[in-house]
Amino acid sequence: GIAAPAIAQTKPTIDWRVVSSFPKSLDTIFGASETFAKALMEMSDGNFRVRVFAPTELVPGLSAADAVTNGSVEIAHTASYYYWGKDPTFAIPTAVPFGLNYRMQNAWMYQGGGIDLMNEFYARYKIVAFPGGNTGTQMGGWYRREINKPEDWRGLKMRIGGLAGAVIARLGGVPQQIAGGDIYPSLEKGTIDAAEWVGPYDDEKLGFSKVAKYYYYPGWWEGQAMLHFFINLDKWNELPKNYQAMIRAASSIANMSMMTRYDLQNPAALRRLAIGGAEPRPFSEAVLDACFKASNEVFAEICAKNADFKKVYDATLAIRGEDYLWFQLAEHTYDTYMMIQQRKGLV
Amino acid sequence: GIAAPAIAQTKPTIDWRVVSSFPKSLDTIFGASETFAKALMEMSDGNFRVRVFAPTELVPGLSAADAVTNGSVEIAHTASYYYWGKDPTFAIPTAVPFGLNYRMQNAWMYQGGGIDLMNEFYARYKIVAFPGGNTGTQMGGWYRREINKPEDWRGLKMRIGGLAGAVIARLGGVPQQIAGGDIYPSLEKGTIDAAEWVGPYDDEKLGFSKVAKYYYYPGWWEGQAMLHFFINLDKWNELPKNYQAMIRAASSIANMSMMTRYDLQNPAALRRLAIGGAEPRPFSEAVLDACFKASNEVFAEICAKNADFKKVYDATLAIRGEDYLWFQLAEHTYDTYMMIQQRKGLV
Repeated sequence: GIAAPAIAQTKPTIDWRVVSSFPKSLDTIFGASETFAKALMEMSDGNFRVRVFAPTELVPGLSAADAVTNGSVEIAHTASYYYWGKDPTFAIPTAVPFGLNYRMQNAWMYQGGGIDLMNEFYARYKIVAFPGGNTGTQMGGWYRREINKPEDWRGLKMRIGGLAGAVIARLGGVPQQIAGGDIYPSLEKGTIDAAEWVGPYDDEKLGFSKVAKYYYYPGWWEGQAMLHFFINLDKWNELPKNYQAMIRAASSIANMSMMTRYDLQNPAALRRLAIGGAEPRPFSEAVLDACFKASNEVFAEICAKNADFKKVYDATLAIRGEDYLWFQLAEHTYDTYMMIQQRKGLV
Repeated sequence: GIAAPAIAQTKPTIDWRVVSSFPKSLDTIFGASETFAKALMEMSDGNFRVRVFAPTELVPGLSAADAVTNGSVEIAHTASYYYWGKDPTFAIPTAVPFGLNYRMQNAWMYQGGGIDLMNEFYARYKIVAFPGGNTGTQMGGWYRREINKPEDWRGLKMRIGGLAGAVIARLGGVPQQIAGGDIYPSLEKGTIDAAEWVGPYDDEKLGFSKVAKYYYYPGWWEGQAMLHFFINLDKWNELPKNYQAMIRAASSIANMSMMTRYDLQNPAALRRLAIGGAEPRPFSEAVLDACFKASNEVFAEICAKNADFKKVYDATLAIRGEDYLWFQLAEHTYDTYMMIQQRKGLV
């Protein structure tokens, strides 16, 4: 039972800032940092206060990691792969082409040593990180022309970044870095031929279907995409152990809440996009084979030069191979059968 | 920053008991209640202490819900569908034949109002419940003879319970309730022809492959199977709000940890089972069609008699239909492509 007000305890009052790399308009993503802050407030009885800031308010979105490293903010809610220019190893905990799916990524992070392995690496940047959201498998983006064969990547000017951009370049395409707000006019004018963003719920807001109707899938460079909370290592070490446990818990809640929000919101957005003229279509197996081959060549080159990247990448490969064997049985067969019923109108 | 030891707070010292419905030998399942207890201890700085008991220690496993209702224990870690005899509505938040998959179940529970909807129902039993673990899609069990056509269910004596058992009976089979420890000798003697349990990691421990080698998939009655923490409602209402928030957080952590443990452990167990003589094989589409039809007949009968069941079941159907449309695109196509590569030995 509940004992009498026992020993008086001390709980320090803490006031921290989270800078998000994402605009408030991406409410599913930005919302994960709000969920994180709310959970901390509730668990700490209001003593561990964390205020969330949009990129324009405090620190530019793509400088969020630097702001954590130098201690000017305590926490960033960000995508680790934004910082792959510092070291490509930053890319792996978010997403790499033909990498893990959502279930496998969580298995690696939470049970397979992924969190600790990455934190060994992040410590060099005075960062400790925990998973804080996921998009699931993303769509492959919007195209003004069809991609019917591997050669169709050649000369394609596409808004796509990071490691995925390096693979597109190897396929003969021209990757471009363009901020969210500039993508629509670039597609409209034909300055670019294609652009990838996230999935139906987020893509719908940017209106791409009006200027580039071919909506390809899957986004083979993001079988899942995980966000993280980056925390300044010195600030983290100063926290009482119970507040550290609350941060782990709040991150975990944010991680799940983002995925569940997408899974509820994407279907209706997809229906609306299709009504508005979007034409979803799958990449052919031959196209994916060319992309897979190009990706493996890019990975081999990086692994040859970067031992950290190789160590972390190999850890994910071990899980990928094992789980894609096992998932073929119960999990995939069940879903496939249910999808057949969906097409028959029976579910 | 961290302020000086501010105002002295009171955090009540609480000592609660969790009775698990599962033996310690099912370490992945039993472990979820240990994960829950550990998270509460850490977040509360040791003030919210929860001790976990195996079924034999305190309360029989299948009486766990009653023990919570009458307040003799504060919490049970259990499968809601064990209590479907009280009301079939208890079955839905765990698993029903051809129901939601893992992603959809979480989306329904955490974002789609599932937790609140179920707690309206559970309140009649003085219970408040939160998700606390998942197995993912289960295997379809072990069979001494092949199931090649729908007629092969006829006369099949199978260890299977709950709503799934009612469907097996409609298919002409003979469902049997047999405790875990008695399944092996029953299969060996031929007292039963088949038995379902969980999946490779748990099934391996019971050694079924030696006496019933056909290992069918998927377990169409458990596209996922979610466990819950059942909490006595009066005790819950007495808790400080911050301790309630910690329980929600600890449940969420346990929920994810169980799934990630299975996803890491099932592949190796499957390999060992196959080496030991198990023969994995899929149910044919014709067999599944017959099971799907029989399931829908059973659901229609229950819905006609039980408004609570219908309300909750319909809530899950809405999500199932929408998500099985959307998941066909990015998610399923990505996984299918990766599985083709796995079969080629390329992942």
